[in-house]
Amino acid sequence: MRDQASPGTLLSQLRAQPPLVHCITNFVAMNIAANVLLAAGASPAMVHAEEEAGEFAAIAGALTINIGTLSSGWLRGMEAAAVAAGQSGKPWVLDPVAHYATGFRRAAVDRLLELGPTIIRGNASEIIALAGGVSRGQGVDSRDGVEQAEESARLLARVHGATVAVTGVVDFVTDGERAVRVEGGCEWMPRVTALGCSLTCLVGAFAAVRPEQPFDATVAALATFAVAGEFAANGADGPGSFSWRFLDALAALDALALDRNVRVFAA
Amino acid sequence: MRDQASPGTLLSQLRAQPPLVHCITNFVAMNIAANVLLAAGASPAMVHAEEEAGEFAAIAGALTINIGTLSSGWLRGMEAAAVAAGQSGKPWVLDPVAHYATGFRRAAVDRLLELGPTIIRGNASEIIALAGGVSRGQGVDSRDGVEQAEESARLLARVHGATVAVTGVVDFVTDGERAVRVEGGCEWMPRVTALGCSLTCLVGAFAAVRPEQPFDATVAALATFAVAGEFAANGADGPGSFSWRFLDALAALDALALDRNVRVFAA
Amino acid sequence: MRDQASPGTLLSQLRAQPPLVHCITNFVAMNIAANVLLAAGASPAMVHAEEEAGEFAAIAGALTINIGTLSSGWLRGMEAAAVAAGQSGKPWVLDPVAHYATGFRRAAVDRLLELGPTIIRGNASEIIALAGGVSRGQGVDSRDGVEQAEESARLLARVHGATVAVTGVVDFVTDGERAVRVEGGCEWMPRVTALGCSLTCLVGAFAAVRPEQPFDATVAALATFAVAGEFAANGADGPGSFSWRFLDALAALDALALDRNVRVFAA
Repeated sequence: MRDQASPGTLLSQLRAQPPLVHCITNFVAMNIAANVLLAAGASPAMVHAEEEAGEFAAIAGALTINIGTLSSGWLRGMEAAAVAAGQSGKPWVLDPVAHYATGFRRAAVDRLLELGPTIIRGNASEIIALAGGVSRGQGVDSRDGVEQAEESARLLARVHGATVAVTGVVDFVTDGERAVRVEGGCEWMPRVTALGCSLTCLVGAFAAVRPEQPFDATVAALATFAVAGEFAANGADGPGSFSWRFLDALAALDALALDRNVRVFAA
Repeated sequence: MRDQASPGTLLSQLRAQPPLVHCITNFVAMNIAANVLLAAGASPAMVHAEEEAGEFAAIAGALTINIGTLSSGWLRGMEAAAVAAGQSGKPWVLDPVAHYATGFRRAAVDRLLELGPTIIRGNASEIIALAGGVSRGQGVDSRDGVEQAEESARLLARVHGATVAVTGVVDFVTDGERAVRVEGGCEWMPRVTALGCSLTCLVGAFAAVRPEQPFDATVAALATFAVAGEFAANGADGPGSFSWRFLDALAALDALALDRNVRVFAA
Repeated sequence: MRDQASPGTLLSQLRAQPPLVHCITNFVAMNIAANVLLAAGASPAMVHAEEEAGEFAAIAGALTINIGTLSSGWLRGMEAAAVAAGQSGKPWVLDPVAHYATGFRRAAVDRLLELGPTIIRGNASEIIALAGGVSRGQGVDSRDGVEQAEESARLLARVHGATVAVTGVVDFVTDGERAVRVEGGCEWMPRVTALGCSLTCLVGAFAAVRPEQPFDATVAALATFAVAGEFAANGADGPGSFSWRFLDALAALDALALDRNVRVFAA
């Protein structure tokens, strides 16, 4: 990864010029996602109403859309924002939470995919199902391993011309040609709600820093999360004590420590 | 309690086969409730839109409905979900937050009660008012003691054929015939917002494990909360430090420690 | 400040008779705002639906309105609540989050201002723009210093007959005649999301205690936040560990410690 933009380089850029990140995310994730962005150094804004989501998307540096607690009104706001992001050349990230669970969700994700997300981030069950495969997912937690989703991710990336990230114990990122695995994190991360949703927002923050390099931006965001998650595990006794240590670790993480501890491997 | 299913036995079952719990709860509770379920070992999903709430309720192991931040659209989702839960034989829990405060809330709770909740959980002011008594409640915090609500709870349980739980300093649970008190917890619990709402979701998780035994499931959930609350009080200096210790304590609580420390008494 | 009601005196009154505070706030702030009010000693209630917001505002001791995650339906609830608060003589606080960002937001704030808020609290960018000046704000974070907003605050206060608070590194409060600066807090506060929104709710709690003295109530709320923020900085290593220490500090703060540590100066 070092021959291109290292995660640390992107993190330094993010902090030097904090991007305004337009997040349309779910009610569970709102607070922790905003705190994750602030800790990392970005400026989050949660704006969802159809009356203003398009106008705001054109102002922001990037947009993230997460369907976790979907409703018809919010879907209209998501579509308005995605259209505006596309028209103004801003990168946007799609997080298709449990899209396989109901017909309403499947239809919503189909419409959002047609609007051309720059990056798609999901867990293994979500990515497998999104590529037309048979996943074991029911609710919002993945029941499949990341390695089972790698081919689905490559397929999705090629069909949609997007960077696709599958996150789990070891993350996988591909743009259809290049592919890497990102190691790190800790056992408590899946036990804290909405950390995956928060990661989607952080991917948006890095994409705002490097709008022309969504693959590098995605890898940098995942690496930042993975290293901060490892650091935060020190002293944590459970999901509660991990959660606030994670925000401290994100805020304290510097570019040098990130690049020294990142574990990204070609896949 | 030991002659039937002990709380520890149910907690072990919950962790061996994590139930998918469909929660329609309020905006204040969303994050902490999801974290409580994850810490305990269950898999939460927040799904409220009328377009999908019914479809999702049929997939989940149990449903919980909380009217804390009610609106017309959400009420339609709640009704769709409650109907679907009833039709598919899934247990569901009603949390009638501050239902006495406005006409809109009273009408909503009347409609939800007609759909036949399996379990009702509230504070003393809510349960007294629900049984037609005169409570001192105004906002969401109880202004009556649990002991004042015991007769109201017995009446409600008989009229609706439901298990009723009144939670406070000492909890009270009845199915109209049996009745127990659950001791435990600590002084900080009422100072952390939405812990009662989170408990409603945890009752749903245990009900999914034992759908045919809602009384035992409710007692097990309350006992789990009470013991984890006691353990978490060690080292806590206020509501902030209690809150994350509580999640750690829930995650660390094992079946043996639960059954050894539970204080459930016939009432 | 001591010749009138000291912040400590108001804090003691708040705790002796916990006010019911009706909060219509954004999805990011809901949980932390409720926890801030509970820690301080007040009783929060989040009620937003137009079907009941007016009825509830008449019951509560004060109302707070924050447009952070605005939508048309919520705006109707805000207007109904503000009208009812006005008719029943209850103080209400307006928090015009990022009102300059979109036309939808600007129109909403114009309508709310016409309903006569008792108190307006915002960051410098928001207050400058609200007074018709040119702010550098884009998203929800301020890009202007409080000192740049002082004249705007005085103008706003006179035009609307309201107490106006600009919060930041050093806060500024004016009712158009009197003006003070409140010092305190710590570097982590702007890195924790929705603390400003939570402060708006706490201003409402103090206004409920002294409805006839909105200036003193606002200063007391800001002083409470500032002193608790300073105390909580001890031992905090980042925004995560600060956040829970802040709730502990608010809960532990007594009237004497507040009055001894408050730093309020005439401006």
